[in-house]
Amino acid sequence: MEQNAESLDKLRVPELDEILGKKFPVLDDGFIRVIDYMGSDESIVQAARVSYGKGTKKVTEDRGLIRYLMRHHHTTPFEMCEIKLHVRVPMDTWRQWIRHRTANVNEYSTRYSIAIDATQKTKLGEWRLQAKDNKQGSEGYFPEEVGTKLTERESELQDFAREIYQERLMLGVAREQARKDLPLSTYTEAYWKIDLQNLLHFLALRMESHAQFEIRSYANIIGNEIVSRWCPIAWESFRDYRMNSLSFSVQEIEVLKKLYSGKKDEAVKLADSFGWLKIIDKRFAKNIERMEFEEKLEILGIDKPWE
Amino acid sequence: MEQNAESLDKLRVPELDEILGKKFPVLDDGFIRVIDYMGSDESIVQAARVSYGKGTKKVTEDRGLIRYLMRHHHTTPFEMCEIKLHVRVPMDTWRQWIRHRTANVNEYSTRYSIAIDATQKTKLGEWRLQAKDNKQGSEGYFPEEVGTKLTERESELQDFAREIYQERLMLGVAREQARKDLPLSTYTEAYWKIDLQNLLHFLALRMESHAQFEIRSYANIIGNEIVSRWCPIAWESFRDYRMNSLSFSVQEIEVLKKLYSGKKDEAVKLADSFGWLKIIDKRFAKNIERMEFEEKLEILGIDKPWE
Amino acid sequence: MEQNAESLDKLRVPELDEILGKKFPVLDDGFIRVIDYMGSDESIVQAARVSYGKGTKKVTEDRGLIRYLMRHHHTTPFEMCEIKLHVRVPMDTWRQWIRHRTANVNEYSTRYSIAIDATQKTKLGEWRLQAKDNKQGSEGYFPEEVGTKLTERESELQDFAREIYQERLMLGVAREQARKDLPLSTYTEAYWKIDLQNLLHFLALRMESHAQFEIRSYANIIGNEIVSRWCPIAWESFRDYRMNSLSFSVQEIEVLKKLYSGKKDEAVKLADSFGWLKIIDKRFAKNIERMEFEEKLEILGIDKPWE
Amino acid sequence: MEQNAESLDKLRVPELDEILGKKFPVLDDGFIRVIDYMGSDESIVQAARVSYGKGTKKVTEDRGLIRYLMRHHHTTPFEMCEIKLHVRVPMDTWRQWIRHRTANVNEYSTRYSIAIDATQKTKLGEWRLQAKDNKQGSEGYFPEEVGTKLTERESELQDFAREIYQERLMLGVAREQARKDLPLSTYTEAYWKIDLQNLLHFLALRMESHAQFEIRSYANIIGNEIVSRWCPIAWESFRDYRMNSLSFSVQEIEVLKKLYSGKKDEAVKLADSFGWLKIIDKRFAKNIERMEFEEKLEILGIDKPWE
Repeated sequence: MEQNAESLDKLRVPELDEILGKKFPVLDDGFIRVIDYMGSDESIVQAARVSYGKGTKKVTEDRGLIRYLMRHHHTTPFEMCEIKLHVRVPMDTWRQWIRHRTANVNEYSTRYSIAIDATQKTKLGEWRLQAKDNKQGSEGYFPEEVGTKLTERESELQDFAREIYQERLMLGVAREQARKDLPLSTYTEAYWKIDLQNLLHFLALRMESHAQFEIRSYANIIGNEIVSRWCPIAWESFRDYRMNSLSFSVQEIEVLKKLYSGKKDEAVKLADSFGWLKIIDKRFAKNIERMEFEEKLEILGIDKPWE
Repeated sequence: MEQNAESLDKLRVPELDEILGKKFPVLDDGFIRVIDYMGSDESIVQAARVSYGKGTKKVTEDRGLIRYLMRHHHTTPFEMCEIKLHVRVPMDTWRQWIRHRTANVNEYSTRYSIAIDATQKTKLGEWRLQAKDNKQGSEGYFPEEVGTKLTERESELQDFAREIYQERLMLGVAREQARKDLPLSTYTEAYWKIDLQNLLHFLALRMESHAQFEIRSYANIIGNEIVSRWCPIAWESFRDYRMNSLSFSVQEIEVLKKLYSGKKDEAVKLADSFGWLKIIDKRFAKNIERMEFEEKLEILGIDKPWE
Repeated sequence: MEQNAESLDKLRVPELDEILGKKFPVLDDGFIRVIDYMGSDESIVQAARVSYGKGTKKVTEDRGLIRYLMRHHHTTPFEMCEIKLHVRVPMDTWRQWIRHRTANVNEYSTRYSIAIDATQKTKLGEWRLQAKDNKQGSEGYFPEEVGTKLTERESELQDFAREIYQERLMLGVAREQARKDLPLSTYTEAYWKIDLQNLLHFLALRMESHAQFEIRSYANIIGNEIVSRWCPIAWESFRDYRMNSLSFSVQEIEVLKKLYSGKKDEAVKLADSFGWLKIIDKRFAKNIERMEFEEKLEILGIDKPWE
Repeated sequence: MEQNAESLDKLRVPELDEILGKKFPVLDDGFIRVIDYMGSDESIVQAARVSYGKGTKKVTEDRGLIRYLMRHHHTTPFEMCEIKLHVRVPMDTWRQWIRHRTANVNEYSTRYSIAIDATQKTKLGEWRLQAKDNKQGSEGYFPEEVGTKLTERESELQDFAREIYQERLMLGVAREQARKDLPLSTYTEAYWKIDLQNLLHFLALRMESHAQFEIRSYANIIGNEIVSRWCPIAWESFRDYRMNSLSFSVQEIEVLKKLYSGKKDEAVKLADSFGWLKIIDKRFAKNIERMEFEEKLEILGIDKPWE
């Protein structure tokens, strides 16, 4: 349990120090920047070795140990790293962001100060169509002529909202009340501090393809630009074992076993017994469990045995 | 450590069961209602007695024990009570509410569903003036003629915002994007579940006179209508020892000692040594520590020794 | 968002009410019993539908919805269920248990009261051998003749420890100090309250085959006897998607793809490029990533392509 | 919201860097040392100013702002500071310590490694008598002749416990089981990481005079040696407004008012109406609320009006 952290240098990660304070732009007027941090890949190892005692040192190398911890959900060593970000985010995105309860937060107060005079604006090519399959998603973009109109109308609304806000302030309405009709697109800022374990959980949910574009844009910067520099080994193992891994349920394992031993018919029978293959109007009825399994089969390069 | 909770009746609080599901209206279109709960004053006592063993039973009565726990910040027995509320709140208020991280939350999703078609509207007599002393407060109301104008303009904005939202939905814009300019006054709904200890902390901050009127209105209902019925003894002790208590700093105690022994001059000297009595333009400079102490002196019926 | 929870009956789960207060014995002198609870499978659905709005009701049935939530890690609806247990546990096991930080706890105080006069005793057939492969595990049991000796010596120590404790109390040593040398096998009791989501996380870690026998014994009771009665659909989906699921890393997916398409050689090459197949003394060197993958292959009924 | 943290120097606190890694001894064989930290008094101010916007800068100085935040329980800026300690603590003390749930922890594993071969030993002059008034406290020390005996017996027990532990390990008993009868006085080690806000809460409870001597010894080092160097202004305001402050209940305020206006008789009447002055056998019955108030009166230099 020896430690020589006395040397201050060992506490720093030069790759991250290089971008300290640098603003990574996100969306039309948002940003993320690193204010401060504590820990590194080495601190994860150091903390794990408090648990495991002296023995480990020689046996396992750092990378192997971090991958082992990630694989087996030994999460506490990752909590030993902490990072503080300064973010500028539309309130609508912030509403999702703040649902992650394990962070420390200091947000710009529109009760105390005048609201930031910036709203997230949508460019004419950025208007997204409602997804058909997924009630909470979007797919594809509107043609520019429609987009032009939508962007114009957006401007009208945002300008009018700001006009009303200014009008109220001029009259002397309390700031805490004047703000009540600001649009959700209004930018806010915050200091956001979180440990690596909880940050990775945030990224697993928000870098995922079904996460909304806006918060995904922030999550991508945090993951790809910041965590990748800060704790590159933890980052790699996170992508290998969490982000890009595949998980199979008890039912899916049963079907996979049949497929790997070449018994397609039995695989189909099993799937049917799970209720995956109901037929309506001569076609398979929508069944989410089956459809999600089909996606995984495709990743594994396996043709689905039905149809 | 015997317990006879087997009887289901003992798990219920009839006074709270009576209002289960009942909507308490808040603001123009909000509400709070109790969905479910676990525990009671008796559960607090029961949990405390697990800690203290058998001996306590006779010595201290329930009320005395609960008051003791509250006075000495023995918070864990209060965590043994849990309540689940269904609330309808303007998003602006919800932004403050959600900052309390210790609750469980399921909020209405405007990503998945069409936003609730209701915004908080301000009546003509309800427009508040910015406080002069307190940057984040309000004081007094606008005269009705100004209020009339403000309310009209509010309507125009809210109507326009809804028009744009509908326009986007009609065109097929994804709900997750269409909502981006909704006003903060838009109502949202949520299930909010929290233990009594954390609920009391929420109430201490949000029933306080400096809390914003809107969230205070919700907190008052929760405290006065719900907690008071649910755990009346805990509620009484909370008001006696937390809500309505007075706390004095080291410096204030020193001054109080001088005042009780009639040494006004020394009290003034002390205050001066703390930097409370700086004079600018022949008047005391604004000093928040002094001003807050003066308020406490007034509550104690003591004349301030300076001036 | 209609709800008719007004009817108290709908808040109860008869299958769980039946065992309320009943002690499930664990180890030689421990137990678990349910003191109270809030919620049910139905509350999970109810909370999810607050998020999703009215539309869902017809489309998805309850079971399908709960399975969907579990599969996609939509954890907040599971937090709407809460349970309070009374447990009696050896302090050594409690040391592991208490590491789960998301619960509310009131533990028997040996500072205030005299320590419970019971220690966990090991029967002669229950002494476990140190595992060879796994530094933190055990495998197999000692023969009875060794066990007899070990159990005798255990008794001597536990008796002596209690003798010293009594001696101190008789002399008037403060309880908070007299307890300092009690053995970790001493039983403690606690009220432990937790929401279903965090309870399932606890069970995922503590019902797992590598968890220590003692805490696993408690976890098994909680899972198989309590949660299974309380929220049977959530319980089933937890076992299908979490407890008994299999997860594959990016590297494992690559190898699996080769295996399905019959390209054994390429699978071996890939594995080698991952460093899984290093050879020492003409045998594969110990490589945990490879060994864990081999276990998964076995579950899928696939022969490993190397050797 | 300008920030120039780019300069790495500004992120360090030289007074704390000086003692980084240094072991502060506690008890007979324990220690505390700082492994790493993030933030400073300046970060508290910086975070508060994100909330308050630009305006504040000139108006309030740093010290005034930190004191204001502490006085008004604006806790989030204090959460922006984080510290990581390496501690060595008897398991009995650790059992109390770990009840603070808001920290990140990696503890030495006696499941994986052989238990630390050190137990907390009590010197002959350190044996404490059970307090008469306070069931969970101690007062005064045993004379040395009794202490000598107690210390001898302690040694016998600790030696025997270690002998049994070694015996088990020699025979090949699994470490996870061999440890089951270790005495609570066995030392453990941990990395413990926590934010300043939660650390201050820990210190408020554990530096308090009623906290057990052992954990108080650790808390005193953390407060007086570490936090005092790390965030001296926050530390001062914590002592002024929290540690050494006095809080008065609604009832106490009423009595104080009478006392400050010289109406002793009415003060007594009020106290009697609160049930504080019941007489048994011609003496005041034990009443904790009254007794605690009397202690506060003494601090204020006020004679109690009864008796």
